[in-house]
Amino acid sequence: MGKGTNRQILLVETPSGKLAPNHFSLNEGQIPSPKDGEVLLKVKLVSLDAANRAWMQGATYRSAVEAGTVMAGGAIAEVVESKAADLKAGDIVFGDTGWQEFAALPAKSVQKMERMEPLSHLLSVYGIAGLTAYHGLLDVGKPKAGDTVVVSAAAGSVGTIVGQIAKLKGCTVIGIAGGDDKCAMLKNDLGFDHAINYKKEHVGKALRAAAPKGIDVYFDNVGGDILEAVLFGMNNKGRIACCGAVSQYDGAAPAHGPRGIPGLIVVKRLTMQGFIVTDFLDKQAEALADLQSWVKSGKIKVIEDVLTGIESLPNALIGLLAGENIGKRMVSLG
Amino acid sequence: MGKGTNRQILLVETPSGKLAPNHFSLNEGQIPSPKDGEVLLKVKLVSLDAANRAWMQGATYRSAVEAGTVMAGGAIAEVVESKAADLKAGDIVFGDTGWQEFAALPAKSVQKMERMEPLSHLLSVYGIAGLTAYHGLLDVGKPKAGDTVVVSAAAGSVGTIVGQIAKLKGCTVIGIAGGDDKCAMLKNDLGFDHAINYKKEHVGKALRAAAPKGIDVYFDNVGGDILEAVLFGMNNKGRIACCGAVSQYDGAAPAHGPRGIPGLIVVKRLTMQGFIVTDFLDKQAEALADLQSWVKSGKIKVIEDVLTGIESLPNALIGLLAGENIGKRMVSLG
Repeated sequence: MGKGTNRQILLVETPSGKLAPNHFSLNEGQIPSPKDGEVLLKVKLVSLDAANRAWMQGATYRSAVEAGTVMAGGAIAEVVESKAADLKAGDIVFGDTGWQEFAALPAKSVQKMERMEPLSHLLSVYGIAGLTAYHGLLDVGKPKAGDTVVVSAAAGSVGTIVGQIAKLKGCTVIGIAGGDDKCAMLKNDLGFDHAINYKKEHVGKALRAAAPKGIDVYFDNVGGDILEAVLFGMNNKGRIACCGAVSQYDGAAPAHGPRGIPGLIVVKRLTMQGFIVTDFLDKQAEALADLQSWVKSGKIKVIEDVLTGIESLPNALIGLLAGENIGKRMVSLG
Repeated sequence: MGKGTNRQILLVETPSGKLAPNHFSLNEGQIPSPKDGEVLLKVKLVSLDAANRAWMQGATYRSAVEAGTVMAGGAIAEVVESKAADLKAGDIVFGDTGWQEFAALPAKSVQKMERMEPLSHLLSVYGIAGLTAYHGLLDVGKPKAGDTVVVSAAAGSVGTIVGQIAKLKGCTVIGIAGGDDKCAMLKNDLGFDHAINYKKEHVGKALRAAAPKGIDVYFDNVGGDILEAVLFGMNNKGRIACCGAVSQYDGAAPAHGPRGIPGLIVVKRLTMQGFIVTDFLDKQAEALADLQSWVKSGKIKVIEDVLTGIESLPNALIGLLAGENIGKRMVSLG
């Protein structure tokens, strides 16, 4: 190896406001040669995540993506050449390859995955999205049968799974999403009890109608005004799993927090807790076994949104931040 | 009984903004007669708490105080006549007598207390303030030896105890208070490592200087701008015990929340948790035993601010909300 063209998408500029196509460029690099301990990977499916946008703005739980470098991103890839003992050509891995066709990465930095059909499930229900939904709902939100659970970005990669797990745990489930098509899918295809189109409905009023007994668990993917509306509807001792703040990623400065913080947290004795999947590594095997059994038995339907071609990556992310995807969005590089 | 004058302070109007003396009036009622199951109480020490203000604004964990009725408030009182089997004349109790000299209450609604010298300790370190400090810090904040703990309203009834418990658990303790006299007391008398006068110093900068390794636990008594400043200094997996929002009680509408919520909660995987003392009733005996042993061994100094006379109650509360007290404020009715 070390020969041939490696098409890549670079982040050419750190966006100060809304992300746009001109923040990216297509570059033709060289296919790298793996060093000792490294593997050369051919990227198959790139994951699109709201967190991609947050990485551009500064250090989060990973270092910031610098302007002029290959855009960072997790992907499912196949090992094409190995200089590491524990991986061989043909193995399937998940790793931060970035937005490019080939990447040489230390074997220690990637995670070997089971080869399965469809491979896309490794990025959706058996990937970060599914594990985030599982641990965030069950270990942070801690719903009990009979509880009312609300999830925002409900038609997204995480939300679709959160709602279905909450249903199979015996909860009343309310999804908040942006669009009548998404709301129809949540109710008709995924069995949500209620779906609120925040672009058309007054979220606070709609929540009072859908949750007359109040809200026990809120799985928050968005922050902002929707978090505020849910806060006012929470029951005493309610739990809020803080998974993301999509409403605040695509701009520069953090916005004011929701009204009623910390007043409502005190008065209602709420718990708000942030988490990432890697906080729950010790429980991951159990989570995957549960998810696999639920998918196989048809209790969880897997919703995916697979686009094609490396050049579609920038608009795939921009569209994701605008909420155009239904289910887990990814780009297949073939 | 049933004869004689019972001086009372009425809340004559629900304040729409800042609390003022004209929201109260002194009334001469009658000493009530206890019914079956009730006790007649002579009020000895009335507790002043920031929560008194919140009660006027609407239902919290208790129903709202209605205009035209005796102002609500917890107090230490002596039983003068009993029509209940489990209490007798001479017993000391804690109960919501309201701001008056005598009250007839169901025996079930009051809590029998140990008679001790000084009786004021039943409202400070062995009362709601001490238990709030104990459970909020240890059960919600969960500090480990070596952690950096920040407490706001640090010179208040709860803050003085929080900081001292954190010190004896091996933490570095930073108090935030409003006044040089308070800050000097925290450092010189109570052994705090640092004290920040938020009226003179830039809290964010002062925190960065005092907590170069970041903040692990924040015991929040105030909300608002100080909560925001602390949020930006929190370490990953930090815990915020939400005890009160004094900055937001003395006005009508809840203010915007701090910048960075929920973004910082997600990125730093913080936990914010509201609580009240009664959430920890099952651990109360253990808490009181610890507090008693710490007071007796001199590890915790008890700071109290005792005013005198029923007519001083309105200004005692107004002054408390303005932060003029040092330690637990109460009014002795003699």
